[in-house]
Amino acid sequence: MGRKIKIFDSTLRDGAQGEGIAFSLEDKLNIVKTLDELGLDYIEAGNPFSNPKDLEFFERVSRMELKHATLVAFGSTRRKNTPVEEDGNCEALLRAGAPAVAVFGKSWDLHVTDVIRTTLEENLSMISDTCRFFKEHGKEVIFDAEHFFDGYKNNRTYAMESLRAAAEGGADVLALCDTNGGSFPDEIAQIVGEVVAAFPSVSVGIHAHNDGGMAVANSILAVEAGASHVQGTFLGFGERTGNANLSTIMADLQLKRGYGCIPPENMSSLTDCAIRMAEIANVTLHKGTPFVGRSAFAHKAGMHADGVIKNSGSFEHVDPASVGNHRRFLMSEMAGKSAVVRKLQKYYPNITRDDPAVADIIAELKEKERRGYQYEGADGSFELIARRHIDGIKPYFNLVSYKVLDELPYDNNHSATATIKIKSNDVLKVAAAEGDGPVNALDCALREALAEFYPQIARAKLIDYKVRVMEPDDATAAVVRVLIITSDGKDVWTTVGVSKDIIEASWIALVDSVVLYLTTH
Amino acid sequence: MGRKIKIFDSTLRDGAQGEGIAFSLEDKLNIVKTLDELGLDYIEAGNPFSNPKDLEFFERVSRMELKHATLVAFGSTRRKNTPVEEDGNCEALLRAGAPAVAVFGKSWDLHVTDVIRTTLEENLSMISDTCRFFKEHGKEVIFDAEHFFDGYKNNRTYAMESLRAAAEGGADVLALCDTNGGSFPDEIAQIVGEVVAAFPSVSVGIHAHNDGGMAVANSILAVEAGASHVQGTFLGFGERTGNANLSTIMADLQLKRGYGCIPPENMSSLTDCAIRMAEIANVTLHKGTPFVGRSAFAHKAGMHADGVIKNSGSFEHVDPASVGNHRRFLMSEMAGKSAVVRKLQKYYPNITRDDPAVADIIAELKEKERRGYQYEGADGSFELIARRHIDGIKPYFNLVSYKVLDELPYDNNHSATATIKIKSNDVLKVAAAEGDGPVNALDCALREALAEFYPQIARAKLIDYKVRVMEPDDATAAVVRVLIITSDGKDVWTTVGVSKDIIEASWIALVDSVVLYLTTH
Repeated sequence: MGRKIKIFDSTLRDGAQGEGIAFSLEDKLNIVKTLDELGLDYIEAGNPFSNPKDLEFFERVSRMELKHATLVAFGSTRRKNTPVEEDGNCEALLRAGAPAVAVFGKSWDLHVTDVIRTTLEENLSMISDTCRFFKEHGKEVIFDAEHFFDGYKNNRTYAMESLRAAAEGGADVLALCDTNGGSFPDEIAQIVGEVVAAFPSVSVGIHAHNDGGMAVANSILAVEAGASHVQGTFLGFGERTGNANLSTIMADLQLKRGYGCIPPENMSSLTDCAIRMAEIANVTLHKGTPFVGRSAFAHKAGMHADGVIKNSGSFEHVDPASVGNHRRFLMSEMAGKSAVVRKLQKYYPNITRDDPAVADIIAELKEKERRGYQYEGADGSFELIARRHIDGIKPYFNLVSYKVLDELPYDNNHSATATIKIKSNDVLKVAAAEGDGPVNALDCALREALAEFYPQIARAKLIDYKVRVMEPDDATAAVVRVLIITSDGKDVWTTVGVSKDIIEASWIALVDSVVLYLTTH
Repeated sequence: MGRKIKIFDSTLRDGAQGEGIAFSLEDKLNIVKTLDELGLDYIEAGNPFSNPKDLEFFERVSRMELKHATLVAFGSTRRKNTPVEEDGNCEALLRAGAPAVAVFGKSWDLHVTDVIRTTLEENLSMISDTCRFFKEHGKEVIFDAEHFFDGYKNNRTYAMESLRAAAEGGADVLALCDTNGGSFPDEIAQIVGEVVAAFPSVSVGIHAHNDGGMAVANSILAVEAGASHVQGTFLGFGERTGNANLSTIMADLQLKRGYGCIPPENMSSLTDCAIRMAEIANVTLHKGTPFVGRSAFAHKAGMHADGVIKNSGSFEHVDPASVGNHRRFLMSEMAGKSAVVRKLQKYYPNITRDDPAVADIIAELKEKERRGYQYEGADGSFELIARRHIDGIKPYFNLVSYKVLDELPYDNNHSATATIKIKSNDVLKVAAAEGDGPVNALDCALREALAEFYPQIARAKLIDYKVRVMEPDDATAAVVRVLIITSDGKDVWTTVGVSKDIIEASWIALVDSVVLYLTTH
């Protein structure tokens, strides 16, 4: 493997500035876990003191055992004319307990004088004092040089001085930010090259935004010019047009130029990771996303499909399997057998391609996917399909019927009431429950009905619920996909349901969740 | 204006290979008109003889009076071992009547020997014969050198010979294709520079695909290396990850590097044109698309919004107006007074910060945001709050009650039934409806109840529905945020509702949607 490039993900900080992006506490923890498992180097978690929820997140995340990633807290240089030891924000950032700190400061003289309104000298002191403060407290320090490229173009000397101040303060990384995203690859390459030469003993990083549509190329040419640290967001989430898309950059650098970004054995998880990140953010992964999009290796032109069969290099720049994606011929969809087998091996290490259950499982997955199911974010439901075909599943219970009534106004605390009839071991059980909404009422009624047969079910609780309305395909009505996340305090599992009716979709996911728990506990 | 760069759009040919893209005859004519009005140089219309619909399209389009663009028919070099005059495809292409022809041929020796299975010499003759044939019949000839960059990397001499054959045949343009989309900007720049130097009397073009996420940068660096012709698709539609996005490339080259792509007075139509193209193709224009996306100039971080107000260059690389887009301040994280005033001015151009209604509106926004509302994606509900405080809103109707019943199994086509009682002008109205799910049933029942009082409501239809579950805050139950998107075929508006109960949240958004429509129609 060639030169190591450190990958720094800012999905939780810059990514959260994207329009329509909002993460819950569980989402954030899930993102940290997902990116750590893929083997990223840094996960920027935001500012712990921006609100109480973020503080709780920092507390929770510091209890996680990260395999690979370093957690990064983000904050500004000290305020002007204030000793850093007396700056409440710096003090607070230190207390967050993250082993690394990203400190952002001004590199553009105009911003020093017009925005923060201080002298050019004071700004340099603010940068060096703040870096030194965190270094003295044992932190790894990444200096984010805001507006570096615009600053360089306006006042090259001062922009370089701002980096020198950070380096003198002990910063480990000088991350050059193209904050308004308008720089071109040729200028990025030239300027980064100059910085690398000027600071031979410090790592140089690149932080690109996509306003000119060139964030990926800008990041890659920065690396070719000597940068060894790339900041971005895994799927390119971010303010305006977004940040540099790390999933694309890592695949380009590692598969095509031989740099080392993540452990090589993890590269084939790239597509899964992308789908999971999109599910957590509750956004549709754009199908044309390089490497990881659903269409990234989809061939429609007959000629291309033909060429690919003769020689896959004709119309594919990398092997789809290298990033865990698969080739699709749009006229005749091919399910990725090897991808499914790889996934099954998580539960059944000895299963092979030739096992007859594999064909049955693929047939069921295909049929379900046609109806709008998606299993990349629903490991629980996938596991259940596998177990059903391989080991069989006990018939724990059958639904006879449910009825859910939701009303406004309501005369007690609960707007919804559910009644349910189930049969378990030939015993009919009727139960009813109220809830804060129809799904909550139905969930409570199901638990009530099952309690007598399977008391252990009380330990598994619904902890998150996601809904996606899918675009009407082929003139059929729109369907709703529901993901339900359940936990017993130890494990967390996700199940999926699809229906035109949101309550029925929720019911399907709820049943999968309960049955999986009963099967495995 | 600097050097003129010819812009060649292949939306109708390469773009139509994108997954989910299919154009009707009317769509195609509409695209030709739209791109011609914007001032593009070439519109590639496909192969007139691929099917009868395409032939009809060529007949219809040849009757259009194009103001600016040259229509291009697309086809292959002659078959091997066949005189070009006897090649039916070439003959047919000629009869299509388009003033320009794009001829694609092989530049990669491996493809000559392994795919079309002929000698390297015969392939060169096929290229030169075909170019010469069309030139002799008065056509402008663009030679598309397929797999040029991969060919160059494998057998530089032969790839250059294929270009020489085209030039000797009289080709006006040598378009270098990165067919599998995997090339890097540095190699594109170097190779294009070499071709430009070798063929000083012919135009050199670039045709990039986005498989490495760098099609825009590759096209731009090709231009910087001397190319004067750029092929792509207006919104980046195309097979796999798509073709180079011309809307981005044109804005980058013209606004930021001074090249001439389209008449300068048309640049402010770029965003309109993008929205129109997306509508014709029936796809959602990705909101993060550089320059033309809905979020391209949307500011969420308080600091950024603040910076933009102080100095727009801080966080905007170009003036949004230069491409006909506009700046947006997203409401959620920052109910800053100036941002709210700016947004209000869209509806009330003369409102100022000191208007007492502004303080009331901000107070309501803050209170609602605390409860989980978010207005960044819900302009309709924001407008309604503004109108309520500034003009007042008529009390169109009051809800007395609704009841929604959802059941499984269900004995007809519909799983949900809603009954509703409303009062309008002191008249009580009861209505009921079935639906595919609870929200659909409630929506239908509300319309049924209102039909008698406000028949115009029949024109407004729910077109999309989004749900987000928000995290449990301080031990209260989780709340659900619902966005409802409604259209009357002309306008589109989005409204928001929040509740612990998904049906109640939907109801709130539904009522906002209906009231806004009644207020403004």
